[in-house]
Amino acid sequence: MSDQQGIKPYVIGLDLGGTNAVFGIVDQRGDIKATTAIKTQQYDTAEAFIEASVNALQPIIEQVGGLDKIRSMGVGAPNGNYYNGTIEIAPNIKWAHDCVVPLGQMFSDKLGGIPVAVTNDANAAAIGEMVYGVARGMKNFIVLTLGTGVGSGIVVNGQLVYGSDGFAGELGHVTMVRGEEGRMCGCGRKGCLETYCSATGVARTARELLDKTSRPSLLRDIKPEDITSLDVSIAASKGDELAKEIYEFTGKMLGEACADFATFCSPEAFIFFGGMIKAGDLIMDPIRRAYDEHVMNVYKGKAQFLVSGLDGASAAVLGASAIGWEV
Amino acid sequence: MSDQQGIKPYVIGLDLGGTNAVFGIVDQRGDIKATTAIKTQQYDTAEAFIEASVNALQPIIEQVGGLDKIRSMGVGAPNGNYYNGTIEIAPNIKWAHDCVVPLGQMFSDKLGGIPVAVTNDANAAAIGEMVYGVARGMKNFIVLTLGTGVGSGIVVNGQLVYGSDGFAGELGHVTMVRGEEGRMCGCGRKGCLETYCSATGVARTARELLDKTSRPSLLRDIKPEDITSLDVSIAASKGDELAKEIYEFTGKMLGEACADFATFCSPEAFIFFGGMIKAGDLIMDPIRRAYDEHVMNVYKGKAQFLVSGLDGASAAVLGASAIGWEV
Repeated sequence: MSDQQGIKPYVIGLDLGGTNAVFGIVDQRGDIKATTAIKTQQYDTAEAFIEASVNALQPIIEQVGGLDKIRSMGVGAPNGNYYNGTIEIAPNIKWAHDCVVPLGQMFSDKLGGIPVAVTNDANAAAIGEMVYGVARGMKNFIVLTLGTGVGSGIVVNGQLVYGSDGFAGELGHVTMVRGEEGRMCGCGRKGCLETYCSATGVARTARELLDKTSRPSLLRDIKPEDITSLDVSIAASKGDELAKEIYEFTGKMLGEACADFATFCSPEAFIFFGGMIKAGDLIMDPIRRAYDEHVMNVYKGKAQFLVSGLDGASAAVLGASAIGWEV
Repeated sequence: MSDQQGIKPYVIGLDLGGTNAVFGIVDQRGDIKATTAIKTQQYDTAEAFIEASVNALQPIIEQVGGLDKIRSMGVGAPNGNYYNGTIEIAPNIKWAHDCVVPLGQMFSDKLGGIPVAVTNDANAAAIGEMVYGVARGMKNFIVLTLGTGVGSGIVVNGQLVYGSDGFAGELGHVTMVRGEEGRMCGCGRKGCLETYCSATGVARTARELLDKTSRPSLLRDIKPEDITSLDVSIAASKGDELAKEIYEFTGKMLGEACADFATFCSPEAFIFFGGMIKAGDLIMDPIRRAYDEHVMNVYKGKAQFLVSGLDGASAAVLGASAIGWEV
């Protein structure tokens, strides 16, 4: 971080999701000073999206003292590429689903030339944990985001791992079940961690178990196609055995995956982020157990298993803003 | 690398194996100026080993102009810990199998206080490739050493990945076959990559296939317990179908493993090192094919598959010496 911070005390964070684009102006302590949002899909082109964004930003930038007070901007976005400042072929954003959008340059041009860093949401979460969250002071850790998919941000030697192309850290797509019996993944391959351990993976496990067995469960009161991971979590917290088994299965697979991840970078912590961690010990306990059982002796007892230290509602914006401090 | 190199142009490399401890004095271009060796297991204590080492080193140090010409020393050793300069509980070295030996400090004390860096053989190979070999100029790559075991050295952002404890990079111990049917590994766990894709893994596959089927093979002329990966390689090069199938199986598993590794750090190259790569395309072709088939779309066509650029006989010493330049 540079000397400029004294006079430029804020960064803009943008959490660019498939539905909402949420902006926050954040100080170095992680306090969100002002916030605004627009609808991501209301625009047909990247240019129109940027223009609407800058219009929405103007009043909150004024609120903190004008553009002179803004050091930089950080964007967490699907398929965000840190090296190029782009988002590339992002399936869920209509103005970016079939092209490469130089989002960083476009924002910078409209915001007086401030540096703009772009990365994916999971990498943003990892930097967010390092700057504001439970990973403060850590140099080697892995953030796993458990939401609609499974994302990851990996920090090695205090630096995010971007790899040769800016797209490193897709641990949701390691193969956990090899061969034909692996579940079909959105990435076109089979047996990815994400197909089992995301929120949608948990719902899928629920439907499979309900279908394959005739065991009683509170989940039978819900139409199979409507079951969500939240329903499973609620049923489990009421003592539903089948629902508890689903979390046991999910956590076991995550723990085994983390045991493999340890061989890569021997992290001091695995940090879990996203909707699924609301299930608390239901998911964290089997993760820890499976990890202890499967990890190599040399790593045993070394890694902590933590849940995100960022405030849920604003975590993604904080994460994105944290990327801005790194520019 | 510092200004001192002008006056201190050499590093000492030590490849510490279970049988031989091989020393080389190496210049910045990777030319080995002088070499010597002692027997690793001939000594009962680390102190005795160090004393014999220094006695053996003395004449070759004089040969290059004395200790004043030596910048530093690098040691590649089983269970070498870079952070602590130690070797820790190394099963195959009798004076280190049940203790932590501060090898770096001990050598430094006897060699006029020069800095001494210690790491494991696979990490040394990775730095060796970066300093002298095929990874010159690369910032993100993975070296896989295929020998008696499977080791790995991972470079991210131009730095070796040591992890929180100095023991990162054990990709030979990711689980490739989950559950009870996984092969028992020396690490006490089941289904590790190493149990299938090391030289001993290849021999194991051969014995299994010969035992399970009655298919003809040149390998049936050898006593099952005597079969080595070299025998399999020779049989395959003579067109033996069963032997070719063994390499196909081995390469396929390595390629699938590399597809998983890509999700971590999206390397620009996978570099293969060690005895097994003598099998050449027999092993490399199926690796490349399986990788292309299994890797996520975003990484497809990006990583090179290379064989080590270090001279076979001296590769380990060169690798160790390269660690010295990094001190």
